[in-house]
Amino acid sequence: MSDDVIALTKQLIEQKSISPDDKACQNIIIERLKSLGFIIETLNINQTKNLWAYHGEGETIMFAGHTDVVPAGDESKWRFPPFKPTIDQQGNLYGRGAADMKSGVAAMICAVEEYIKQYPHHQGRIAFLLTSDEEAEATDGTIKVVETLIKRQEQVHYCIVGEPSSEKIVGDQIKNGRRGSLTANLTIHGIQGHVAYPQLAENPIHRFAPALNQLVNTIWDNGNIYFPPTSMQIANINGGTGAENVIPGDLKVQFNFRFSSELTDEKIKHQVETILNQHQLNYTLNWRLSGHPFLTPQGKLTEIACQAIKKVMHIDSQLSTTGGTSDGRFIAKMGCQIIELGVTNATIHKVNEHVSCDDIVNLKNIYHEILIQLLGH
Amino acid sequence: MSDDVIALTKQLIEQKSISPDDKACQNIIIERLKSLGFIIETLNINQTKNLWAYHGEGETIMFAGHTDVVPAGDESKWRFPPFKPTIDQQGNLYGRGAADMKSGVAAMICAVEEYIKQYPHHQGRIAFLLTSDEEAEATDGTIKVVETLIKRQEQVHYCIVGEPSSEKIVGDQIKNGRRGSLTANLTIHGIQGHVAYPQLAENPIHRFAPALNQLVNTIWDNGNIYFPPTSMQIANINGGTGAENVIPGDLKVQFNFRFSSELTDEKIKHQVETILNQHQLNYTLNWRLSGHPFLTPQGKLTEIACQAIKKVMHIDSQLSTTGGTSDGRFIAKMGCQIIELGVTNATIHKVNEHVSCDDIVNLKNIYHEILIQLLGH
Ligand SMILES: [Zn+2]
Ligand SMILES: [Zn+2]
Repeated sequence: MSDDVIALTKQLIEQKSISPDDKACQNIIIERLKSLGFIIETLNINQTKNLWAYHGEGETIMFAGHTDVVPAGDESKWRFPPFKPTIDQQGNLYGRGAADMKSGVAAMICAVEEYIKQYPHHQGRIAFLLTSDEEAEATDGTIKVVETLIKRQEQVHYCIVGEPSSEKIVGDQIKNGRRGSLTANLTIHGIQGHVAYPQLAENPIHRFAPALNQLVNTIWDNGNIYFPPTSMQIANINGGTGAENVIPGDLKVQFNFRFSSELTDEKIKHQVETILNQHQLNYTLNWRLSGHPFLTPQGKLTEIACQAIKKVMHIDSQLSTTGGTSDGRFIAKMGCQIIELGVTNATIHKVNEHVSCDDIVNLKNIYHEILIQLLGH
Repeated sequence: MSDDVIALTKQLIEQKSISPDDKACQNIIIERLKSLGFIIETLNINQTKNLWAYHGEGETIMFAGHTDVVPAGDESKWRFPPFKPTIDQQGNLYGRGAADMKSGVAAMICAVEEYIKQYPHHQGRIAFLLTSDEEAEATDGTIKVVETLIKRQEQVHYCIVGEPSSEKIVGDQIKNGRRGSLTANLTIHGIQGHVAYPQLAENPIHRFAPALNQLVNTIWDNGNIYFPPTSMQIANINGGTGAENVIPGDLKVQFNFRFSSELTDEKIKHQVETILNQHQLNYTLNWRLSGHPFLTPQGKLTEIACQAIKKVMHIDSQLSTTGGTSDGRFIAKMGCQIIELGVTNATIHKVNEHVSCDDIVNLKNIYHEILIQLLGH
């Protein structure tokens, strides 16, 4: 049984499934779920493959994840070829997607196989939502499947996203929410001119300087019990023609908010515009909301997950809402309790991505234990 | 006589002498100076042609200028082809270099021709310093000729640079000095990271914001009777990878000082570094000095020039030190009184560069009058 989850992880890593190309990942999974008696539905949109599958009926626990990976980067810097999964002397499995998140997908499939073989007439319903478009645009993946499921009034009560949530060892951290993400694209308009004649120009960098200083020194909120304080970061600033004697006409600034549930995107927009207006700037401002903040407060799902981790790993798990966004932001719209629980994330998206084989087996056992606690034995 | 200066201006405009390519400009001039009895010396360095020529001996008045022009830009936007000099209904001569500064060169040649034909045995010495490398790098032009002349202990007492110094009509403004120009190339070093984990990164844009605010709000000096206050302008600012979720590792900022004779480049450098250090920034800073400020206080040359303008134009001339740098910064090292006096500069370096034919003739007459006042009749 423990060899099985490693073998499936390796089989998935061998598929060079760079977003949104699924290669054969979902076909491999579909074959296994079919033989368990799952009802299978594929929802393919443009280049993206999506899978919705379920077994049983009633109160529903859904496993969610993605089969796509980011590119390997400089392959010459890898210890082992990124799409030839290799286990080193220390028992670490190397390969692109080893942590994010083919091991998570393999663990959920193998845990469900184990559980259904033991309890073929289990209570409730076990479901899967998989996509091949999480790492790239994420426009044709989970968001579209969730829209379809909501239209059909499908009920999901608990959701486990198998993203790599852990820090040092599997289960040491569960994500029970994520901050919102909001990006501002700002252009400050000035008047171009020659540096020798500043009185005929209006330097947008000079005009923006006091507002910039205020923006970076603003405390947006203090966070709350679940969320760290809202953070604003200027990601890009560009002004100037390249010539050293020309005052630029425009300054472009892009900044991103990771915001807690204490704030809304509307409140942030209002505050930023108030600052810009106070400084009487001539500007154009466009906003892009990547995700509202979402949160699953401590409750049945987080408690069962912590108990399962305690049983398998003999450690206490921490709840956290830090880090980037995930497809959980879309699934949250279904109104279910939702956590992210997976392997360690130290090497994701990097060269030499790897994960401990023990962690993969333990993750499978944690998922299995959660199924027992939620659906019975 | 007045047709002659227009004809020579047109002849020079027809030479597509984009820096440092002189085409035949200096050859045309050399032929004319030779037949006047000038002693001619060419000092060609790399692609640059330089001309040093003189007539007579004793107290020396030198005319200086350049035969090169900037490129024409988008030729389709010109009313007339930029290298086919054309006079419109209003009596304006169009062409690249019409204002900057082929009309100035033609006026000084024709004024000297007129003067020497009238006074072949004039007192003192009349000299010319012309280069084909003023608009571009200016590394092989006037600076090199001046070095050579200083080594030889050549004495020059008065210098008139024929650059377009005027605003609305020829002679309304004389430049009796120029501000210094100093450029800073600053890199602020931070630590790159993901916007979701700002505590693991150090955003150089955020770190620099208070220093930027201080830099743009600093009053560097109040100028003096001859110079406007020193001006600092940020010409270029660039930070960011382009991705909206990455905190950049570095921020690059380029800024330029146009400084009065109240300051030195050393004082400015010290003040900037003090500000950066106050904000405890990790930075790399490189400086480039394009020119020290120079000044010819009111005196014999400015007074004679003003009288000549009054006589020819019936207007009072203003002394000014505003605007960009010129080759005057190099000639100033010879210790002479030096002014810039030429046609209007409204259209220089632009499409449809043009100058009034009346102004060209009047400029020639002003130069002629200055020769009479300085060298006698
Ligand atoms: Zn992932
Ligand atoms: Zn010029």
